[in-house]
Amino acid sequence: MRKDMQTPSRKLDHLQICCNTQVEAGRAGFEDVRLAHAALPELDLEGIRLQTRFLGAELGSPLFIAAMTGGHPATTEVNRRLARVAEEFRLGMGVGSQRAALEHPELEESFTVVRDEAPHAFLCANLGAVQLRDHGAEWAERAVEMIEADALCIHLNFLQEATQPEGDHDARGCLAAIADLCRDFRTPVILKETGAGITAETARLIWGAGAAAIDLGGAGGTSWAAVEVERTGGDEALKALGQRFLGWGIPTVVSLCEVAGSGPVIATGGVRSGIDIARALALGADLGGMALPLLKPAMESEDALEQTVRAFLRELRVAMFLTGSGSVRDLAQVRTYITGTTRQMLCE
Amino acid sequence: MRKDMQTPSRKLDHLQICCNTQVEAGRAGFEDVRLAHAALPELDLEGIRLQTRFLGAELGSPLFIAAMTGGHPATTEVNRRLARVAEEFRLGMGVGSQRAALEHPELEESFTVVRDEAPHAFLCANLGAVQLRDHGAEWAERAVEMIEADALCIHLNFLQEATQPEGDHDARGCLAAIADLCRDFRTPVILKETGAGITAETARLIWGAGAAAIDLGGAGGTSWAAVEVERTGGDEALKALGQRFLGWGIPTVVSLCEVAGSGPVIATGGVRSGIDIARALALGADLGGMALPLLKPAMESEDALEQTVRAFLRELRVAMFLTGSGSVRDLAQVRTYITGTTRQMLCE
Amino acid sequence: MRKDMQTPSRKLDHLQICCNTQVEAGRAGFEDVRLAHAALPELDLEGIRLQTRFLGAELGSPLFIAAMTGGHPATTEVNRRLARVAEEFRLGMGVGSQRAALEHPELEESFTVVRDEAPHAFLCANLGAVQLRDHGAEWAERAVEMIEADALCIHLNFLQEATQPEGDHDARGCLAAIADLCRDFRTPVILKETGAGITAETARLIWGAGAAAIDLGGAGGTSWAAVEVERTGGDEALKALGQRFLGWGIPTVVSLCEVAGSGPVIATGGVRSGIDIARALALGADLGGMALPLLKPAMESEDALEQTVRAFLRELRVAMFLTGSGSVRDLAQVRTYITGTTRQMLCE
Amino acid sequence: MRKDMQTPSRKLDHLQICCNTQVEAGRAGFEDVRLAHAALPELDLEGIRLQTRFLGAELGSPLFIAAMTGGHPATTEVNRRLARVAEEFRLGMGVGSQRAALEHPELEESFTVVRDEAPHAFLCANLGAVQLRDHGAEWAERAVEMIEADALCIHLNFLQEATQPEGDHDARGCLAAIADLCRDFRTPVILKETGAGITAETARLIWGAGAAAIDLGGAGGTSWAAVEVERTGGDEALKALGQRFLGWGIPTVVSLCEVAGSGPVIATGGVRSGIDIARALALGADLGGMALPLLKPAMESEDALEQTVRAFLRELRVAMFLTGSGSVRDLAQVRTYITGTTRQMLCE
Ligand SMILES: Cc1cc2nc3c(=O)[nH]c(=O)nc-3n(C[C@H](O)[C@H](O)[C@H](O)COP(=O)(O)O)c2cc1C
Ligand SMILES: Cc1cc2nc3c(=O)[nH]c(=O)nc-3n(C[C@H](O)[C@H](O)[C@H](O)COP(=O)(O)O)c2cc1C
Ligand SMILES: Cc1cc2nc3c(=O)[nH]c(=O)nc-3n(C[C@H](O)[C@H](O)[C@H](O)COP(=O)(O)O)c2cc1C
Ligand SMILES: Cc1cc2nc3c(=O)[nH]c(=O)nc-3n(C[C@H](O)[C@H](O)[C@H](O)COP(=O)(O)O)c2cc1C
Repeated sequence: MRKDMQTPSRKLDHLQICCNTQVEAGRAGFEDVRLAHAALPELDLEGIRLQTRFLGAELGSPLFIAAMTGGHPATTEVNRRLARVAEEFRLGMGVGSQRAALEHPELEESFTVVRDEAPHAFLCANLGAVQLRDHGAEWAERAVEMIEADALCIHLNFLQEATQPEGDHDARGCLAAIADLCRDFRTPVILKETGAGITAETARLIWGAGAAAIDLGGAGGTSWAAVEVERTGGDEALKALGQRFLGWGIPTVVSLCEVAGSGPVIATGGVRSGIDIARALALGADLGGMALPLLKPAMESEDALEQTVRAFLRELRVAMFLTGSGSVRDLAQVRTYITGTTRQMLCE
Repeated sequence: MRKDMQTPSRKLDHLQICCNTQVEAGRAGFEDVRLAHAALPELDLEGIRLQTRFLGAELGSPLFIAAMTGGHPATTEVNRRLARVAEEFRLGMGVGSQRAALEHPELEESFTVVRDEAPHAFLCANLGAVQLRDHGAEWAERAVEMIEADALCIHLNFLQEATQPEGDHDARGCLAAIADLCRDFRTPVILKETGAGITAETARLIWGAGAAAIDLGGAGGTSWAAVEVERTGGDEALKALGQRFLGWGIPTVVSLCEVAGSGPVIATGGVRSGIDIARALALGADLGGMALPLLKPAMESEDALEQTVRAFLRELRVAMFLTGSGSVRDLAQVRTYITGTTRQMLCE
Repeated sequence: MRKDMQTPSRKLDHLQICCNTQVEAGRAGFEDVRLAHAALPELDLEGIRLQTRFLGAELGSPLFIAAMTGGHPATTEVNRRLARVAEEFRLGMGVGSQRAALEHPELEESFTVVRDEAPHAFLCANLGAVQLRDHGAEWAERAVEMIEADALCIHLNFLQEATQPEGDHDARGCLAAIADLCRDFRTPVILKETGAGITAETARLIWGAGAAAIDLGGAGGTSWAAVEVERTGGDEALKALGQRFLGWGIPTVVSLCEVAGSGPVIATGGVRSGIDIARALALGADLGGMALPLLKPAMESEDALEQTVRAFLRELRVAMFLTGSGSVRDLAQVRTYITGTTRQMLCE
Repeated sequence: MRKDMQTPSRKLDHLQICCNTQVEAGRAGFEDVRLAHAALPELDLEGIRLQTRFLGAELGSPLFIAAMTGGHPATTEVNRRLARVAEEFRLGMGVGSQRAALEHPELEESFTVVRDEAPHAFLCANLGAVQLRDHGAEWAERAVEMIEADALCIHLNFLQEATQPEGDHDARGCLAAIADLCRDFRTPVILKETGAGITAETARLIWGAGAAAIDLGGAGGTSWAAVEVERTGGDEALKALGQRFLGWGIPTVVSLCEVAGSGPVIATGGVRSGIDIARALALGADLGGMALPLLKPAMESEDALEQTVRAFLRELRVAMFLTGSGSVRDLAQVRTYITGTTRQMLCE
């Protein structure tokens, strides 16, 4: 394969692997979190307001469609469906890394379809920290323009880089590049892990660089080490390396407890139900992001995706009802019970 | 089916589902509680007094028959048996929700049988908080009169309402309706959850409204989400919703530890032996309520039910003996060892 | 069967049930205790002194043969073997309850054999607290004389009494009877539970009554509820009652931690190896008692029993070596690591 | 077999048993340790410096080849391969106990091959504490000279001695012999357990004796009780004894936390990946030692061994990258999350 065409084809690999194999590893910690039940909610279930604000935008609910795809013609349809549902429910949505389209403008359509279908949605462009460092604000600008994005996610995925065949192994200069970007960029910048979580220490670096928000991307959901293990082909050493790192990283709930309160936070990684979104918000997140649980229905049909989203929002609504939360803001006040390993990790 | 006849038929569904399928979910926490053994009890086992007082009434023991049924002709026999056993052992007993009979007076017999058979028992009428709000003190009055009740249970079941096909989704105004009722009502009012538990916060609301007692109805016994899952028919979305909420709520033991000491408390939800009743009382409950463990024998025969109750009372008596408790009051002083998840939930 | 011959036949039942069915229940907690390893023990393994003193007597080791049998002609041989091994290793040994022989002097031989075979051993006579109360110092005297005992164990077994067909259900007056006995009796009195453990509170009562030592008889080894379950015959209610109480009581390690330091203590109940004896001593016990693990070899042959005891003593010796304990006294200083449920029960 | 030829043949037994049977027992605790992830490592993965210093020597990485073999002609090839890989990667390496060669100089070649093949490696001679005590500085000198060693490991293996057929049971005088040796010896002396761990108390003794470093040899990896169980032949008593002690000792991570900070430490025992080495260093170890995981490939071929070492170093490198550690020194600052039993053992 032509080396410069590796990115797009990799994107297709990822979708297929995520749909057909077990790519989740570890525990995000949501099963260790129980919400205080309000036996007397004093609310009308149907009147509960899921709406929320994030970085100045009005969102229909705190369910965020986490960055997944684009960059290969065959992903256009998936992005179209995600976008249509984002528009319908006024969800925030991230696109997958735009690197492929920045390198090969003929692939842009797989991204631009998102804005076409979701003219009013809060959309997040997506670029790797390494690409930002190597190509600077110009690529960031182009990424945002490509989809008329409302925010730009800079993703951090060094666990994946270190365990994938064609990974980028030089992480130097990323922080400076992020700080440079944040200084002048007109669009808010979100720093986003992709499965290994953000510690309190890293959060301080990120806020110090001027980011507008953090997407935790904690451990316990889709594991990129697991995904890359499937792509190692005959390279047994690389495969074994990936397997060792399946359990690496900070579980989403632990990461959330470390970062909550320091700035706007999207909790992504192992969020698997509307109740999990409620748990995340009770623990201090602003939004709860989901990738894998939306991918399978999105590859099936728009209808399947819509039903899935509707079900998650229903669960969230019921969880809000049963915690006496009339609004997303109320949810942040709900008392939680934290047990098990998660509790132990929080009590260092 | 005529919509106005839905309630009675639903009642029958419930009994059959509870008898034939696994409707218990989660853990109530009793297995995490161990009682301090008194190697030298200094008591006569047969002389131990199980008698206790609750809301001014003399009860033969702290085993309470939790609200279950009535409202369909086929349930009359079950209620008759429960009532006869309540009378025999002087147990407190609740009837199931009287809504059906309030709407359809021809169904009253399935409730009145209880007072007929148990002229001296402490009986609790039963009405949903939503029905109270919608029909006011008049229905409360009629419910009490129907069985010459000694107390009125207002049940809170919003988890069930939110996950059942014909559920009531508007919970507004219930607290005010309860407060209104408590202000003037001549019969003591008990607020009762039905499987999701009462937190310390909710207990404060309830006492503030003027209730005379709380029945915790904690998680870990019969799960109404589980029951309703069986009734969703073809509605896959509703079924999935119910399944998500199987684990919802505050386990009975945790709920008990939060509420104990603030007023009269019945601990219901996952009480499965006389030892569990002793545990509940050692942790501060006034009575231990049981529904499911009595339902199966009650549907079989009066004799089966009587033997079951006798066995539970024997276990309670032995547990009192082995903790050196000559009376129910002594039991409240017994030291407990709390371990596991329950312990973690209590140490927030 | 003649009612007055019930005791001896029951004794035989017990041996057979203990040998042929699973009569252990729960966990004594020894698996939660780890001893600090001494990598540089500075000892000669073969020179380690297992000898210890207990109630003024010199014992060959802290392994105590807990009370088991006697009272039926068929048990004479078992007691003979236990006694010969006690004599050989200078172990302390208790005989089973002597009630049968006190009621039927023709059964005395099954006890007297013990002193015949073990002229120098530290022997403990055995009587139930109820028998002491009912028959007073005279029976105590006769029990001691029968085997020229060095101490008298008064056993507390109300869990068993409450769950066995012919159980004694009146426990009143036992404490006073014990105090009366201790006041004048020339032989030291040991209070002994038989599987449900002694709490700190009960220990205070026992010391207050003037006892010379406590045998904890904690939960987690032989469960008398389990044994009695096998003897309920057709009485399903009694069987069910016994099963409920299988897990009752204070685990031996927890009981030990509550009682240690307050007076001489034998830790019995679930001691299953020489390492367990070492653990018990490190936690503050003076002796570690075993019943069930010695019963099976004792019923086989003297040789089997001797090998079993030798193995336990070897394990104890090695554990002392690897903790740098040249003597039983040193063992009491060894640091322990306590984890799991046991740890949680200790941190109330 | 001639008694004086027992040592060499035993050495061969050990290798075969370790390769063909399950000789690991318990848990070293590494699975309870999670490292704080650095989402923004600001490093070049390939530029990370694995080099470190230990006792004045420059090592290519903190992976230490723990003492394994020598002393039988058939082990020469295994030692050759280990040595060649040590030379290639500049790893520290220990040889197995040299007792056999000190007693039978014709066996020296199985040791001298190591220095021949690894002229620049940091090599550790190896002698049992008992041999040191019995033969004094002369044997220590000869052991060092035999391989021109850079340090001398005195191993402590009393768990093994106590459970093996021909074990040395007298541990007296070892500490004095060590102190004597350390006083004048020109080569640094390392005290090394072999599977039961070093407590804080033992560490104090060791530092007091003047040792230069400690190799923890904690529990949870190769269990010598398990190895010796395989060698008991028909001796059932010895086999049973060994089995009782399978779980004996202080897990490596617990031992490490007790000893860290008090002097140079090698963490050996259950280290099974490069991530485990990183965990050990984050908890305060200077080197992470491995025996069993290197034995199987070393018995296969030099190539297999080289690939194994390369994989472990790669894992270590990636773990350093993902914790933002550019050097081994940085790794020591990485925050850890400790959970489970390990955490409980640390909080006494
Ligand atoms: C198929 C797939 C592709 C993804 N591609 C990207 C990407 O290009 N950029 C990015 O920042 N995150 C990407 N992610 C990571 C997700 O945004 C998210 O952080 C992660 O999957 C954890 O969420 P989950 O457990 O709900 O899947 C991808 C995830 C999936 C499943
Ligand atoms: C068949 C059945 C019907 C019930 N119906 C009512 C009801 O009408 N009103 C009410 O307050 N609780 C009702 N309950 C709830 C019980 O009173 C009790 O709170 C709950 O089942 C937990 O106790 P358990 O685990 O012992 O079953 C019902 C329970 C069962 C099993
Ligand atoms: C067969 C058998 C008979 C026993 N009989 C008596 C007895 O008569 N008196 C007594 O005090 N304890 C008796 N015990 C209890 C033991 O002394 C001991 O406290 C208990 O079994 C716990 O120890 P273990 O777990 O090692 O069996 C008996 C135990 C067994 C197994
Ligand atoms: C086959 C084999 C032979 C060993 N021989 C010795 C030895 O002679 N001297 C010594 O100090 N340790 C010896 N050890 C112990 C190791 O150095 C190490 O402390 C122990 O195996 C724990 O590490 P592991 O879990 O990685 O195997 C040996 C280990 C193995 C597996």
